[in-house]
Amino acid sequence: MKRIEVIQNIMEANQTIAGRNQKLLNRHKIAAINIMSSPGSGKTSLILQTMARLKGRLNIGIIEGDVASTVDAEKVQSEAKAVVQINTRNMPESCSLMAAMIEPALQEMPLNDIDLILIENVGNLICPSEFVLGEHKRVVISSLPEGDDKPTKYPLIFMDADSVIVNKIDLLPYLDFDITAFLTSVSGLNPKAKIFQVSCKTGEGLDRWCSWLLEQVSESATER
Amino acid sequence: MKRIEVIQNIMEANQTIAGRNQKLLNRHKIAAINIMSSPGSGKTSLILQTMARLKGRLNIGIIEGDVASTVDAEKVQSEAKAVVQINTRNMPESCSLMAAMIEPALQEMPLNDIDLILIENVGNLICPSEFVLGEHKRVVISSLPEGDDKPTKYPLIFMDADSVIVNKIDLLPYLDFDITAFLTSVSGLNPKAKIFQVSCKTGEGLDRWCSWLLEQVSESATER
Repeated sequence: MKRIEVIQNIMEANQTIAGRNQKLLNRHKIAAINIMSSPGSGKTSLILQTMARLKGRLNIGIIEGDVASTVDAEKVQSEAKAVVQINTRNMPESCSLMAAMIEPALQEMPLNDIDLILIENVGNLICPSEFVLGEHKRVVISSLPEGDDKPTKYPLIFMDADSVIVNKIDLLPYLDFDITAFLTSVSGLNPKAKIFQVSCKTGEGLDRWCSWLLEQVSESATER
Repeated sequence: MKRIEVIQNIMEANQTIAGRNQKLLNRHKIAAINIMSSPGSGKTSLILQTMARLKGRLNIGIIEGDVASTVDAEKVQSEAKAVVQINTRNMPESCSLMAAMIEPALQEMPLNDIDLILIENVGNLICPSEFVLGEHKRVVISSLPEGDDKPTKYPLIFMDADSVIVNKIDLLPYLDFDITAFLTSVSGLNPKAKIFQVSCKTGEGLDRWCSWLLEQVSESATER
């Protein structure tokens, strides 16, 4: 089928460009993290809380992926070393960032002055699982109000993740969310994923997450 | 660009098949509703609550769209006249139902015995906005924990909706959700959308929603 061929070509091209992006990041000893989730799971809140906690310790660059609007980029502007907004609405793929969108974004950033780039992907549990961007680690956020069946229903994105963040843990008393069932599903799909239970509202669990990020940065600074 | 052409061909083919689906539905005087939302906004819960309220008054068929798993189809099985599961994982488009997936699903249903078909789309606020299925009305659910900025960030799906359901209204006391800002965004994009504020947990607002559904069914029974 013609579409399948086109998709294969796009995937191959994406892989090539992602490789170039990663080389560029490695040359500058920058760690890059691709943050993926459904709409409203807390990607922007996590970025804001992370920047507040790592202030003065790391220079952080942000790439904001959105179908439309610049509301998230505006929110993170004041604390970041650099922010680049990507709007996917009129691009060939609107439901995910792709490596070819990241390449020009990196050109706009002062790479010599950055330690860590957080990439906020488009809010979507399906498409972003198909495209690597050149990132060093892939993180998926799942928030309690979405329900404990999300790993079962959207397995690919959980299978590929280096880390799974369970957000809005402060809402547990008000929801029917079976945390054991959720964690069992995740470890069934991906036993190696590092799991963080957090609340971006109360701050619970965020120190452990930030320590993990600092490990990624120090790996990029030494090994790559 | 080659991909753009392929996409245009797919959209045209989708439109043609959607037209066929709608003719078939009209011949059987069935109303079909396409229910779209992010993962975990409450599509399945809404369907379950709707079936409980309309029990004995309508025969309801359900089409369940999921990337993977049959957990939703199993939940709705006992109350529906017929349930067809569509798993999109290995289909050319995994992030949305398409008209070509609905066509064989309709063939599996006892159309003479059905008044209303509820189609649960794949959990996604982007892709489903691009594909009509043959439905009579398009409904988007947005739940409070997702935040009040969703219409601004995912405008297309709200612009096209005949109805917008604001779900999980029972969580309002525990969240920073500005309902006025949300409603203003929706009416800015789509002043004609019928809005229902509901809780599928407490039942609040669901009678109005069911009355609206009954209107759609009676329109299909008489006019089409």
